[in-house]
Amino acid sequence: MKIIVKKFGGTSVSNIDKMIRAGNYIKDSLNQGNKLVAVVSAMGDGTDKLISILDKLEKPFSREEYDSLLSTGEQASSAIFSIVLKSLGIEAQSLLGWQVPIKTIGEHSKSKIKNIQTSNIQKLLDKSIVPVIAGFQGVNINNRITTLGRGGSDTTAVAIAAALKAYQCDIYTDVNGVFTADPRIVKNARKLNKINFEEMLELSSLGTKVLQSRSVQLAYKYDVRLQVLSSLHGKKGTMVVKENEILESNIVSGIAHSCEESRVTITGLENKPGISAKLFTLLANENINVDMIVQSGAEKDKNVSFTFTIPKEDTIKVEELLSNLKSEVEYARIDIDKEICKVSVVGLGMKSHVGVANKMFSILAKNNINIHVISTSEIKISVLIDAKYKELAIRSLHEGFNLES
Amino acid sequence: MKIIVKKFGGTSVSNIDKMIRAGNYIKDSLNQGNKLVAVVSAMGDGTDKLISILDKLEKPFSREEYDSLLSTGEQASSAIFSIVLKSLGIEAQSLLGWQVPIKTIGEHSKSKIKNIQTSNIQKLLDKSIVPVIAGFQGVNINNRITTLGRGGSDTTAVAIAAALKAYQCDIYTDVNGVFTADPRIVKNARKLNKINFEEMLELSSLGTKVLQSRSVQLAYKYDVRLQVLSSLHGKKGTMVVKENEILESNIVSGIAHSCEESRVTITGLENKPGISAKLFTLLANENINVDMIVQSGAEKDKNVSFTFTIPKEDTIKVEELLSNLKSEVEYARIDIDKEICKVSVVGLGMKSHVGVANKMFSILAKNNINIHVISTSEIKISVLIDAKYKELAIRSLHEGFNLES
Repeated sequence: MKIIVKKFGGTSVSNIDKMIRAGNYIKDSLNQGNKLVAVVSAMGDGTDKLISILDKLEKPFSREEYDSLLSTGEQASSAIFSIVLKSLGIEAQSLLGWQVPIKTIGEHSKSKIKNIQTSNIQKLLDKSIVPVIAGFQGVNINNRITTLGRGGSDTTAVAIAAALKAYQCDIYTDVNGVFTADPRIVKNARKLNKINFEEMLELSSLGTKVLQSRSVQLAYKYDVRLQVLSSLHGKKGTMVVKENEILESNIVSGIAHSCEESRVTITGLENKPGISAKLFTLLANENINVDMIVQSGAEKDKNVSFTFTIPKEDTIKVEELLSNLKSEVEYARIDIDKEICKVSVVGLGMKSHVGVANKMFSILAKNNINIHVISTSEIKISVLIDAKYKELAIRSLHEGFNLES
Repeated sequence: MKIIVKKFGGTSVSNIDKMIRAGNYIKDSLNQGNKLVAVVSAMGDGTDKLISILDKLEKPFSREEYDSLLSTGEQASSAIFSIVLKSLGIEAQSLLGWQVPIKTIGEHSKSKIKNIQTSNIQKLLDKSIVPVIAGFQGVNINNRITTLGRGGSDTTAVAIAAALKAYQCDIYTDVNGVFTADPRIVKNARKLNKINFEEMLELSSLGTKVLQSRSVQLAYKYDVRLQVLSSLHGKKGTMVVKENEILESNIVSGIAHSCEESRVTITGLENKPGISAKLFTLLANENINVDMIVQSGAEKDKNVSFTFTIPKEDTIKVEELLSNLKSEVEYARIDIDKEICKVSVVGLGMKSHVGVANKMFSILAKNNINIHVISTSEIKISVLIDAKYKELAIRSLHEGFNLES
């Protein structure tokens, strides 16, 4: 008998009707002779209302209490979904993070799963009861409730699947799967039936918000078959698989984009050893996630420039940090641009094919799109462009690489 | 150093401003050199919204899941109140039922506290941290969350006070204390500074909704000093004390009333042995709480009548049960009246004074108020009257027994 973990995101369980729909996917799979485990997120924006109560108070709040508050969202949805499953004739029982238990380590609000004891889940499965596990939450060594941070419920689902050595982990969401590009931008974007883990990792870290990259990494590490599919109709979505399961790799599998960063350029920096270390240590110490970095200026130049990207929400903080730096380090000026996007082509086939970068740059040039920064990995090429060219760039790359066919 | 438990009901913590007010009562008491433990209910009607989601589903729901759902209300308020206390400069930490732990036995949704381990609370107190305990909830032997039923947070507070051997348990609510009669009905009703446990028990079981009788019983059993006071201003309320702490008992301490019952009369029942047992066993088996009972008809009469009261919400059920009974037991007719109220005079002094019943009946007669049923205990006399005479009866009894002075 196969164990299948099915995870339903907030939009998939936001009301009773949607829960009944989700419950029927469980029922269908049970009828096929599988053993099922459900993992649920909080119902839509239920917890947002709770959190808004805190607006009147001074930040930062106690992370411990915040986690205890936040976790009520999944606690409520796991109870309600269990009641819904029973109403469909399915034996079910909710399990909270501390009841599984899912033991976590690390800071509150971004804890990591240390281990999952499976005996309580297994006992339910042995009695043909569907465990309904509250996603996003765990319990730490101090017996306090923790949360796993962004995309935490996906991580819960994959970790449960790994711990149970489940056959497959299905992630139900509000899209049909992974597409060759954002279907809202490219009308004839194509759903991919299979995608490789590495490609998926690049896509999720590049802003395709189908899966949180943490859960993809975890699935890759523990060899969990992962499927992304729509909770609307439950039809076959995109399977995330190992490289060897894909017979013929696409040179380019898809176009990703993200407009959540700002570009920072510092010009006229005195060119002396350790200057870049100083600059980026300063940002790292403040937990600012610097992404694309370009240094211009040759070894013997008197001055150099740096261009890099940072999360948009850190823009003001970085501006402050750099202006304070002036007392220690000489530079001419800082230039910050929030109206930029990163567009990337991703494909496992790039490993063995040359000319993808070249083709990409040509397509952009033909459309008069200026490239600010370039960064590459073995299986992706990213360029930073002005935000206004986003749609044009994505559409022309999609067409240029023949992704609709 | 004295340990004081302060319990804040739903209306006392329904928003941040009220929580800050409650927090200041904690602060004042800390400044007086006490050690404090807070117990909180859910914030106003927060959980009602969650429960309304279930309206679409067929009842009954799984009690286990319902408890897990319900308990999120107190989980949220304990986290938020801890955050509020910290914002006031008070070290605080929330503790959920399973974190204390408060071990319960019995059915879900009306569990009873079996024991409370105090070591986790004590550890916090030793570090001058205020434990903020989620009321109304516990954990059972199956490691599932349970709730304590109506007035459960009062019970949590008293049980915690008993377990910690606290000096006092303060119950903050939306009234100033216990009054000689409902102040909404009797303008010059007087707040009692002290009341005896037995009187309080009678009052709470007679419909004065200041304290749940369960928590009063518990306080009496474990010798917990109990105070009821208003969360609006936090001034001295009513102390519930042992008999010997009251020097001179009032003959009558107060007038209670309750309009939450229906009167049922069955006439023309065949007078044979076991008829009353049959009737009331039938109701007891359906968990219907029968209160005042009167049988009329002498031993040698051919027929007898029964009049009794039942909770208003069970009226339809009782009507059904009795009409089904017809096949087994002969009777003339059933008469049900929902427009009735029970009015009671309560006072410890009745034990040693005669003539209270007599005086009560005279006052009602003078006002042309007809009495349907009478029931008495050592320290109270209750009468059932038409609902329309409720105010008149309460006011004239309050005046007749000189309670305003």
